[in-house]
Amino acid sequence: VSEERSGGDKGPHQWSAVTVVGVGLIGGSFALALRKAGFTGKIIGVSSPETIRAALDRHVIDEAMPLRDAAGQSDLIYLAQPIARILETLDEIDPHVYPGTLITDAGSTKSAIVARAGKRIRRGRFIGGHPMAGKQSRGVGEAEADLFRGRPYVLTSSVVAASLDAELERWIKRIGARVVIMTPEEHDRLVALTSHLPQLISTALAAAIANEAGASRVAGPAAVDLTRLALSPYEIWRDIFATNSVAIDDALAVFIHKLEELRAELRSPEIEKEFERAASSARELRRGEVSPGG
Amino acid sequence: VSEERSGGDKGPHQWSAVTVVGVGLIGGSFALALRKAGFTGKIIGVSSPETIRAALDRHVIDEAMPLRDAAGQSDLIYLAQPIARILETLDEIDPHVYPGTLITDAGSTKSAIVARAGKRIRRGRFIGGHPMAGKQSRGVGEAEADLFRGRPYVLTSSVVAASLDAELERWIKRIGARVVIMTPEEHDRLVALTSHLPQLISTALAAAIANEAGASRVAGPAAVDLTRLALSPYEIWRDIFATNSVAIDDALAVFIHKLEELRAELRSPEIEKEFERAASSARELRRGEVSPGG
Repeated sequence: VSEERSGGDKGPHQWSAVTVVGVGLIGGSFALALRKAGFTGKIIGVSSPETIRAALDRHVIDEAMPLRDAAGQSDLIYLAQPIARILETLDEIDPHVYPGTLITDAGSTKSAIVARAGKRIRRGRFIGGHPMAGKQSRGVGEAEADLFRGRPYVLTSSVVAASLDAELERWIKRIGARVVIMTPEEHDRLVALTSHLPQLISTALAAAIANEAGASRVAGPAAVDLTRLALSPYEIWRDIFATNSVAIDDALAVFIHKLEELRAELRSPEIEKEFERAASSARELRRGEVSPGG
Repeated sequence: VSEERSGGDKGPHQWSAVTVVGVGLIGGSFALALRKAGFTGKIIGVSSPETIRAALDRHVIDEAMPLRDAAGQSDLIYLAQPIARILETLDEIDPHVYPGTLITDAGSTKSAIVARAGKRIRRGRFIGGHPMAGKQSRGVGEAEADLFRGRPYVLTSSVVAASLDAELERWIKRIGARVVIMTPEEHDRLVALTSHLPQLISTALAAAIANEAGASRVAGPAAVDLTRLALSPYEIWRDIFATNSVAIDDALAVFIHKLEELRAELRSPEIEKEFERAASSARELRRGEVSPGG
């Protein structure tokens, strides 16, 4: 484990070829990040013809081929598709990989994907993943090598583990992210609170403001800030809501309860303590963000 | 009215001296903005000794004096104090101003302030104001001439009016803001939704996250974005809650209702329409923001 923490040693399972399935913002950024971090093997892309053209033009991937061909010559297969497509890929990929090939993904929810992989992946080995990084704009044209820098990168395990795969973790660290290991269920519960709830809050606020004629005439930076996520297209959220609705419902219940508490305390001195607790929590979130280590 | 819209003409009531009471972020920025926009008269500051020292050092004001002395030699008195202090200043300032002196303020709620001015200001004339601009950091050290650029600047009137004071409106336009005229009650109802509600949402989200061990380990940009307001110090909110609790309670009710609607629709196709409506509202808010005109 200490060897793997240092980040500079060479392990026994060095990758010579990596396939990225879905060369969009995340998949493309992973490819660029690997290259920038010193990966000298081949990077194969599997994506739609237009995306492949753009990815080759930008030198994000070295070559393109159909999934079945790519699977048979890769040490790592990185699934960066929408959740529903990842589930489909897991249904079909296993017969085409060499025994022991590592398959990981970048889907925003983990329980459904890890359960599907548990049923379908026999020859390969699957580790669920979720880099906590993103941008408002999508597509390979937005991909950048530093997208993961300073961000948590979750890997899931059904058991508490110090390390899941030395080579994968080494590269995640080399691209500037910090490895966080947790169960798929814990991941889904936490992101319901830190990612899915913020989206719904922003959408609800923008919708509430839409109903009030004239609100946009006085909207200042606070309203603009808090409605930024409401610009997100629904298509990425359909799969998230479909695969994490129980945890999201729980997060909404917790949040609404907290808001009702503040509402009851609006003119009470108690609310000052709530502000202090919340400010301390917001500072804690930022400490996590800037920290470069694990 | 058309003369006033052009922004370049000279009116009959040109100011030769302006007093800023409370030379913090907003008051200091107003002074710097006036100067940058070509104001050649005297700018007097009324503030605490440390603030005055910093404001003189930064050339934000030309000189400092006690409120009573400043009031008697100013054409405009600009109250940029906390709300509770503005109310106190309104209680004492009137006997010290020349008849017809314009008094305005930059307080974040308007009904209580305008009501107090209605009782106390007899010799002077009062127009409530609220520049929809701000920064996370406060104090005269953060003041900047461009703080109001591209932002709405609300002036309040109990009657629907095309223009309230030609010289005031001319300078507000010259500093880059756009004049928005509405009643104090409409202002307070709208900012409850666009400013006070976002603060409570951010505080509630940060508090909900604080209760969940491990959440900061996976927090990505969404959680960081939406908890930024939770860093605001409570002291500026005490007066806002005290003077606008009814409208804030209404805004909370509307928002919680909208969130419960989304919660019920999490796995229904209906939610897609909500996302589209919200995205369109969020875009509308941004259009308001970048527009340089009225």
